[in-house]
This record gives sequence, C-alpha cells and structure tokens, in this order.
Amino acid sequence: MSGQVYFEDVHEGDSIPALVKGPLERIQLVKYAGASGDFNPIHVDEVYAQAAGMKSVFAHGMLSMAFVGQMLTDWMGPLGELKRFQVRFSAVAWPGDVITSTGTTVRHWEEKGEGLVELALESKSQEGTVTVKGAACVRLPRRSA
Amino acid sequence: MSGQVYFEDVHEGDSIPALVKGPLERIQLVKYAGASGDFNPIHVDEVYAQAAGMKSVFAHGMLSMAFVGQMLTDWMGPLGELKRFQVRFSAVAWPGDVITSTGTTVRHWEEKGEGLVELALESKSQEGTVTVKGAACVRLPRRSA
Repeated sequence: MSGQVYFEDVHEGDSIPALVKGPLERIQLVKYAGASGDFNPIHVDEVYAQAAGMKSVFAHGMLSMAFVGQMLTDWMGPLGELKRFQVRFSAVAWPGDVITSTGTTVRHWEEKGEGLVELALESKSQEGTVTVKGAACVRLPRRSA
Repeated sequence: MSGQVYFEDVHEGDSIPALVKGPLERIQLVKYAGASGDFNPIHVDEVYAQAAGMKSVFAHGMLSMAFVGQMLTDWMGPLGELKRFQVRFSAVAWPGDVITSTGTTVRHWEEKGEGLVELALESKSQEGTVTVKGAACVRLPRRSA
C-alpha cells in the first residue's frame, strides 16, 4: 500500500495487505548473516546443517520475523509508529519456501488522544505451515489531528 | 614477527615468516562474502556449487590473496609500505584446507634514498597444491635514516 493509512480508515476485522517473500535463497541467508552478525553455521553451512540432522540450512528466526516487520511498516506508512511487536517461531523456513505474512486488526481504540490498533500476525509457507505467529500494536495518525 | 624490520636487516634469498591459515571453514567464507560484498553463490551455497560441478564451495580468490597480504603486512611492520602486490590464482582453496603462505626476497636495492625489497610469494595447501603465486615490492625503513 502506498501513501499513509489513517486511524479512521481501519476497522476491527480488517486485513492489512499481505507480504509475500520468496522463494527463499541460500544466498539470502548468507546476506542476512552478514547484515545481522548472526553467523550460526546452521543457517549458512549446508554440511554443518545436515550433520546436525537438518534436511538443509534454514532461515534465521529473526529473518522470518523481519518479513512480518516489513509487512507492518509497509502498511503503517511513515507516520505510523510500531509500539509493540512480538512473535513466536512455530516452524523454520527452508530454502525454496515462499513465505506469506498476513495481519488482521483485532482491536481498534483511542487512548489519551492516540489512535491505536492491535494486530494478530501470521506467516505461512506455500505448504500452509505456520512459521511465525505474533501480535503488534501500532499507533496510526488521525485525520482529525 | 613483532616489532619493525629494517632494510639493513634483509638480504637477498631471505625467507620472511610464513603465515599458516586454516583449516578453512565454510563460515569463514560466509563472513568474507559479507565483508567483501562478493555474494557469488559458488563460494557459500553448497547446493549451487555442486550443481555447478564443483566438489563443494571454495574460497574467494581475493581471500587467498588476503592471506598473502596479511603475511606481508605482518612482516613489514607499521613503517613498511606495500608499493606493489600482484598474484595469480593457480588453484582454489577448499574448506578444510590449511594454506601456508611464504615469501622470499629476490631483490634488495636502494633507489632515490629508499630501501626497496622485491619478494616472490607463494601459497600452498597441506597437499602441496599451489593456490597462489605472486610478487610484491615493499619499501622498508632504514636504520640510518
């Protein structure tokens, strides 16, 4: 969504625009390792990962969380403020996976003059495996402000 | 070698202290990819490398060159100046390889009051495979200066 979303435009039960990332590439995990400083070889060393009993390397959990974060910040626009963001990692994301993140408004209220929105968040692979579940609270600008 | 080497201490035919690096680890290649910005997957994506007909990922050529460069700068000390450094890549370095870099003074002369040293350089794996051959010219400080 381009432009700015306002508090008055959002209603409980609304879905925000989904974000699709993938297919995940191994080189993407290599780049994320360098960008994050997380050099756990399980994410980037195929031989190590398989010796550890995994079918292959797999995405850093924080990268899966970042996909959801990108969906949120794309949606809330430059005047939105992410006040809280938490996730639980349910399953790992593998190279080749296409990860779709979604969010739904579960609460929409005013507090001390601010417009606040609580969202339920989820990411799933192309096979329907839930990789991330979470929640966020976003302050949105008001048209009337 | 700690401290500073001086022009007067060096003679033609001298060897400089060798530098041993390794065994090379895949995670080292991942770190080098991030540090250098060279994300060619042949160096960090095992599946890609094997599909391309290689036995595994292998070191970036510039990383092999950097081992030789580290040997040179360790030796020449803070007052040395690396004036020229060139290498030819003879063979790739693989994960698990132990790479020993060596250098020999092949010329030692004065020019416009400067003390200059020409070195022949080589790196070999533990199996004796030459991975890098090269040459460098280093200016060394003079005790008499």
